[in-house]
Order: sequence, then C-alpha cells, then structure tokens
Amino acid sequence: MDFPHLDDSGRARMVDVTAKEPTVRSATARGAVHCSAEVVDRLRTGSVPKGDVLAVARIAGIQAAKSTPTLLPLAHVIGVHGATVDLTVTDDGVEIEATVRTADRTGVEMEALTAVSVAGLAVIDMVKGLDRTASLHDVRVVAKSGGRSGDWRRPGEPG
Amino acid sequence: MDFPHLDDSGRARMVDVTAKEPTVRSATARGAVHCSAEVVDRLRTGSVPKGDVLAVARIAGIQAAKSTPTLLPLAHVIGVHGATVDLTVTDDGVEIEATVRTADRTGVEMEALTAVSVAGLAVIDMVKGLDRTASLHDVRVVAKSGGRSGDWRRPGEPG
Amino acid sequence: MDFPHLDDSGRARMVDVTAKEPTVRSATARGAVHCSAEVVDRLRTGSVPKGDVLAVARIAGIQAAKSTPTLLPLAHVIGVHGATVDLTVTDDGVEIEATVRTADRTGVEMEALTAVSVAGLAVIDMVKGLDRTASLHDVRVVAKSGGRSGDWRRPGEPG
Amino acid sequence: MDFPHLDDSGRARMVDVTAKEPTVRSATARGAVHCSAEVVDRLRTGSVPKGDVLAVARIAGIQAAKSTPTLLPLAHVIGVHGATVDLTVTDDGVEIEATVRTADRTGVEMEALTAVSVAGLAVIDMVKGLDRTASLHDVRVVAKSGGRSGDWRRPGEPG
Amino acid sequence: MDFPHLDDSGRARMVDVTAKEPTVRSATARGAVHCSAEVVDRLRTGSVPKGDVLAVARIAGIQAAKSTPTLLPLAHVIGVHGATVDLTVTDDGVEIEATVRTADRTGVEMEALTAVSVAGLAVIDMVKGLDRTASLHDVRVVAKSGGRSGDWRRPGEPG
Amino acid sequence: MDFPHLDDSGRARMVDVTAKEPTVRSATARGAVHCSAEVVDRLRTGSVPKGDVLAVARIAGIQAAKSTPTLLPLAHVIGVHGATVDLTVTDDGVEIEATVRTADRTGVEMEALTAVSVAGLAVIDMVKGLDRTASLHDVRVVAKSGGRSGDWRRPGEPG
Repeated sequence: MDFPHLDDSGRARMVDVTAKEPTVRSATARGAVHCSAEVVDRLRTGSVPKGDVLAVARIAGIQAAKSTPTLLPLAHVIGVHGATVDLTVTDDGVEIEATVRTADRTGVEMEALTAVSVAGLAVIDMVKGLDRTASLHDVRVVAKSGGRSGDWRRPGEPG
Repeated sequence: MDFPHLDDSGRARMVDVTAKEPTVRSATARGAVHCSAEVVDRLRTGSVPKGDVLAVARIAGIQAAKSTPTLLPLAHVIGVHGATVDLTVTDDGVEIEATVRTADRTGVEMEALTAVSVAGLAVIDMVKGLDRTASLHDVRVVAKSGGRSGDWRRPGEPG
Repeated sequence: MDFPHLDDSGRARMVDVTAKEPTVRSATARGAVHCSAEVVDRLRTGSVPKGDVLAVARIAGIQAAKSTPTLLPLAHVIGVHGATVDLTVTDDGVEIEATVRTADRTGVEMEALTAVSVAGLAVIDMVKGLDRTASLHDVRVVAKSGGRSGDWRRPGEPG
Repeated sequence: MDFPHLDDSGRARMVDVTAKEPTVRSATARGAVHCSAEVVDRLRTGSVPKGDVLAVARIAGIQAAKSTPTLLPLAHVIGVHGATVDLTVTDDGVEIEATVRTADRTGVEMEALTAVSVAGLAVIDMVKGLDRTASLHDVRVVAKSGGRSGDWRRPGEPG
Repeated sequence: MDFPHLDDSGRARMVDVTAKEPTVRSATARGAVHCSAEVVDRLRTGSVPKGDVLAVARIAGIQAAKSTPTLLPLAHVIGVHGATVDLTVTDDGVEIEATVRTADRTGVEMEALTAVSVAGLAVIDMVKGLDRTASLHDVRVVAKSGGRSGDWRRPGEPG
Repeated sequence: MDFPHLDDSGRARMVDVTAKEPTVRSATARGAVHCSAEVVDRLRTGSVPKGDVLAVARIAGIQAAKSTPTLLPLAHVIGVHGATVDLTVTDDGVEIEATVRTADRTGVEMEALTAVSVAGLAVIDMVKGLDRTASLHDVRVVAKSGGRSGDWRRPGEPG
C-alpha cells in the first residue's frame, strides 16, 4: 500500500476520480481555539459581547470550504452543496464544528477540516490583539458518510 | 480594552493601518500533524519514501501565506516578501514551522499561522487514505519581530 | 417563514442542496450605469469611440459570474455552463443585461446579478477619470427559468 | 481628453502609476437594496431578527474591497489598509455605506464601490427566497480624500 | 463557420454547454523550457540536484489546471477530476507533459495547456537567477479523448 | 552558485526581499500563437473580423500579470502598477508583447511572461474550435529595466 497521491516514482498527482459516481457525501470536523480567560470573559460579557466575532469566523469557515481546491494542491474541484460552521464559547476558548455536504465524486473531509481550521484562524486574528498566545488545536474529522468507504465515526468522539 | 476588530456597536471592520510605518517584520509559527505509526514508517522508509509529500505541503504553506487576506475577512492586503516552511518527520507525525517576512504596515503572525495550518492540511490530505484519524495540533505563534510592539518569543518554546 | 440562510438561532449557513436535481436553469438580470452627457458622447463619437471599453466590461461581467461563490459567502460552488453580457450605450449612460445558464443544482440569479454589477463597475472604472459621479442603478433579476419554482418574468419588464 | 484606460488605438491598458507617490487616500461609497415590506419587517422583528444577515453582508463587502483588482481588469494591485461597511435597515430595504483607506499609489473609489455592490448582492442573496424582486440601487461615490485631485464631496449628498 | 466564442456582432460570450452530456474526457499537452547548459547541468548534478525544483513546477501545473476558468475569460467552470504533470530534464532544458481528466460537459484541452504553461513558467521563475534567457516553447495539445468530437492525436507526435 | 529558491537542503522557499529598496522596475516579454492560415484569414477578413478576440486576450493577459503570485508558488506578492498587452495578427498567427511596471521590491519579468502566456492561451481557447493544432511559442523576456541588476536587452531581439 502506498500514498495514493504519489505515482510509482514518488511524484505528486491528482488522483483520477472520473470513474467514481456522484453520490451524496458528508463530513464533519472539529477543532478548538485556546485563548486567555480574559478573552473568554470578553467574548461572554464585554460591553459588546462577541459582536460579530463568531459570525466573522463562521463565514470565514464556510468560504474556506469552497476554497479547498485552491489551498490544497492535490484536491479536486468539486461542487460544495451545503456547509455549516458552529462556534461555541467555552472556558478554554472557542470550540468549532463544521459539516460539509456534496453530491459529487469525492469525499469532503478536507473541506470540513479546512473550514474548521480557517474559522479558528479567523478567531485568532480577532483576539490576537488581546492574547498573542491564542492557538489552534485538535483539528480532526469526527464523522463521514457516503462514498465507497461508507459511514465512519471517530472512536471516542461524542455524537 | 475591546476587540480592535469591532467598532463600538460590535460590528466587524478592517482596522485602519494607514498611519503605520512600513518596516521589516517577521513572524514564526509552529504546529504538528499527528498520524499513525504506519504512515510515519512509510514517510521514512517506503519504496518511495516521502516522494513529493513534504514538497507539496511546503508549497501549499507558502501559497497559503500569500492567500491570508483572502481567507481571513479582516486581514489587510500587504506585501509578502519572504516565506519558508519546514517540515520534519517525527515519531508522532510531522512537525511544521513557518516563517514569514514583510516590509509593510502590519505584522505577519496570521500569515505564519495560515502557512502552518494549510501545510498541515496538505499533509493530512495526502495521508488520509492510509490514516483517516490524522489531525492537526498546536498551531501557535512562537516568535515575532519588528513593528510597534517589538520582539516577542513565546514562553517555554525551544529556540 | 424565515430566512433560509439562517438556522433557528439566526446563524448563517450554506443551504443544503444535495437533494436537488441537476437541471437546466437560466437567469437574466439588468442594470444601468449613469454618466455625464460628455462621457456618453465620447463613447459614441470620440476619436477612438468606445475602443475596448464595452469589451472590458463584458469580460469583467462574464468572469464575475464565475466568481460568485467566492464573492457571496453563502452561495454554492456550481458549474457555470453559459454566460452572455450585453452593453448598450444610451443617452443616460450604459445599459447592461446578463444571462447565465447552468445544468446544476441551484438557480443562477445571483450569478446574473453579479455579472451585471461587476460589468457596471468596470464601466465606471474606465469613465471615472472623466466623470467622478458615474453610478450604478437598478440591478435586478428580470427573468428566470428552470428549477423547482419554474419560470418567472419580472412584472412590467420589457421582453 | 480621452479615456485614460485606452491607448491611442482604443486598446485597454492598465495605466502606469509608478510615478505617483504613496499617500493616504480614502473613499466612501453608498448604495441601497430595495426589498418588500415583508422582508423589512422580518429584518426588524422576526423570531431571529436579522441574525447574521447584516454581518454576512458586511464581511462580503470588506472581502470584496480586497478583491477589486481581481474583479476589475484595469484596476491596480494596491494595499488595502482599512475598510468599514455599515448597513442600516430602512423602510425600503437596506442602506449601505463603505469606506476604504489606503496608503498607496491610487485612489480607492473602485474599492469602495465594489464593497457596497457586493454587500448589497449578499443581502439580495439572503432575502431572495422571500422576495425575488429585491434589487440594488444608486451605488455611487459620495466622498474621497487624498491624492493629486484632493478632497471631493458629491454635491447634494448628506454628510 | 465563425468563432464560436463570438456572437453575430463579434461580441465575446461563454458558449452555452448546458445541453452537452457529462462524459469522461481527457486531454494531454506538451511543451518545453529552454535554458542554458549550466542550468541543465545544475539540475542534473549540483550539490542539491533539482531539490524541489521539479516538484514546485509539477504542483504549480496541477494548481493551474484548476485555475483555468479564472485565467481564461470564456472558459467554463467545470469539475477537474484528475491531473498529472511530468517534467523531464533534457539537454536543452525541461520537457513538460500534462494530462487532465474530467467527467463533465466540456473538453479539458485548455486545462492541459494551462498546466504545461504554468509549470514551465514556474521552472523559469526558479532558474531565471542563473539564466535570464530561459524561455517557454511549443506548448500544444498532443492528444484528446472523449466528447462529441471523439479521440484525436496530433499528427507526428510521439505516443 | 545555486538556485536562489532552494535552501542548502534543496527545499523550496520564497526568497527574502525585505532588504531590497522599492524602485521603479519594468519588464517586457514576447511570444506567439501559431495557427492555421484559415484562422489567420478569419482574424483579418471574416464577417466579424476579430470582434472581441484580441480584446479578450489583452484583458486575460493584464489580469494574469496580477495573478502571478497565485500561479507561481515562489513569486512575491507585490504591487502591479502598470501593464500593457499588445497583440498583432501575422501570417503565422498572433504575436504578443506585454510590458509590466512596478514601484516595488522585485523585478516583474515573471509578471510579463505570465501575461504573454495567458494572453496566448486565451487566443488558443477562442480559435481551437477552428484549429485544434493552435500552439504557443517562444515566450521570453526581451528587456528589463530597474533594480540592482540594471537594464538588459535580450541579444538579437528587435527593439
């Protein structure tokens, strides 16, 4: 078994998926931004609590899902037919979950991971003036459905 | 003290930096992809060990640094005047470090964080066929120099 | 009835269209640039009447139709399978009509509106050195066909 | 006097601005989305009044200001060093005002007009399911400052 | 017979392909970068022979295939479902071959030509510090398959 | 002497130009599209001779100059402060010349080469329905000025 994105000589390629059927596929990813107690407090109780902060991050995440083939050299250009990005303020910072859906030829795990990552970066961009140590953690796929490999849920992940 | 990206009503804005001086600024960020021992082994000793894998990720990271104002809604359009992305295979996966340099009006911390994140996503994209649990961790700024706030090194970070 | 782009908590999302059938859909939009009599005269009878002006605007409009999912955060990535942009010099400035066609899962009204708007902005960009008051007006969908909601023509609009 | 974007043969070109000085420049543009009384009512008093609607449009406008050289063929690649987009719900729909600032070689009137137009299109995208006649009106520059031609305010425009 | 991209008045348009069937289509293009014997020697036997040079060009070519509708005004937005770019160092410089595959409504000849051209430009970018005369040559389609016009091989081209 | 874009281990990097002075720089590139006598004839004497063909290519070239840092992984994000693209119909096809100017930290040779290449690809896109053998040739820098290495004219090139 070898890396599917490399040919026999180790050269990168975009894997040919023309023979795959367009079917409904979905992927959900999660991750978290850690930031200081002061920032968390301000996100919850400031004079303008949160304001547009979570909206900006949500939109950045949705837009990033659509930019995946531009960002990842070997990703396919596919239709993006549904996307949600949810952010929740916690005691440690902000938790992020993104779900992307398509009716096309490849899975959308990378689109979901990209949405979570960029939403997290957008949060960091907005809070870095208050906490320069803000950081992004544990970006991972937690579930996928559809496609040849079928449904999968990451072991140990809450539903 | 409030979020600089929000006005008094909590509305997002791109902060005005026209009064800032263009000076040489630099930022370094780090992060890591975790993946299975099997993938690590293949990255080290396969029949085509690594092949283009690290090159693809390196280039994805450099390109992403340049895409930062497209990805992050409130980021400024600035010149990107230098960028390096280094990847090292470890026992746990791949460690990533990116340094971005500019001679412009804002810091480039977000450019460095974006480079690390997208380089990590590119690694995950290439190994996900072998390990669907591959994930991105601990993306953070470790050092910056230049600009009004001067030099900074993240406490506890190796040099 | 609520905004389809908002969930129950008012959070933006990209509406899931995976269950929609790919069918042929079309949308036509119109709008107008108003500019001074002097600019209109020059567009008609200058030493190089018009030159590339209308071609530049036409191409900007066609390109913009393709950029719709990048510009509008909640728009889907779909195929764009046909586009025309027509510009007509009138006594008041330039009238613009764009028609976009697709064989995909969503309507293309936003693609047509985006084509008209950006074609108009391109005209303004080229004439603003002669008339800084040039402006964009009445950008609206005038007809659509295909999709679940079927054909529609804007009341009172000439055919 | 001829179109500055055309050479003597009428061919489009990007005007050479290398000899211009980088100075602080600002431009403000306005426009309006017209939509039905029902949509206005829902924007004001629905169960989730507005939700992210205005935030999505604001961010789309800010992002579009940065995309101006991609959208308008003859526009220069310049730094965008500040941007605000404000939306106000009125009896007729939504009024939009955008201000863009730069410390670079050209004015930013087109950036401000593009921000208003795309913010308006984003509003239309979100309300079109409730009102397919929603439309964009009166997109114009209302003020500019800086650069060789100095300050200007559109006659008859409220401050 | 006239240019299909022009209407009866000579105005550019994106040809309507909504009536075409999505089928598997493929196109292969070739071209060459010419550069000095010194650069060729360095690509073959330097202290870090080639390093990432060919990988950078390969990835630039794959990415460019995906950017075709952004670069070419009248090109359609279609799915890109497979892409390979191969580079070979020769006595005269670097030979490039790209193959692009899709299961969509139009041929991918332009995608293959764009991949070869941009891969070649990326090579020139990397060697221009050593040889400012490096240049791009003979970019042409050598074979296509699928679609209404069926299979074709360029006369006189080696298989 | 080694490739400046590779570090000591052969890894690609974006060269640091923060220490370079912003100065006025210019580069001119040329190339040619070869196509059949029939296409040349149609470009000259058809019922709609040329129509928008050369305008589309000219605009594609200007836009491509601005896209250079997106297309070429190691190219810097710089200001593009002037661009012209000229196309001339000849007995063999279309000759293309592009000049790009900047007042920034790096030369613009790659921007000029990219403009010529993409203008040529746009021509091929428009004529390929009439001549599938249309091809791109001899894309090279013919002159540059400004910057540390000063002025240069390609030997043997007409002025």
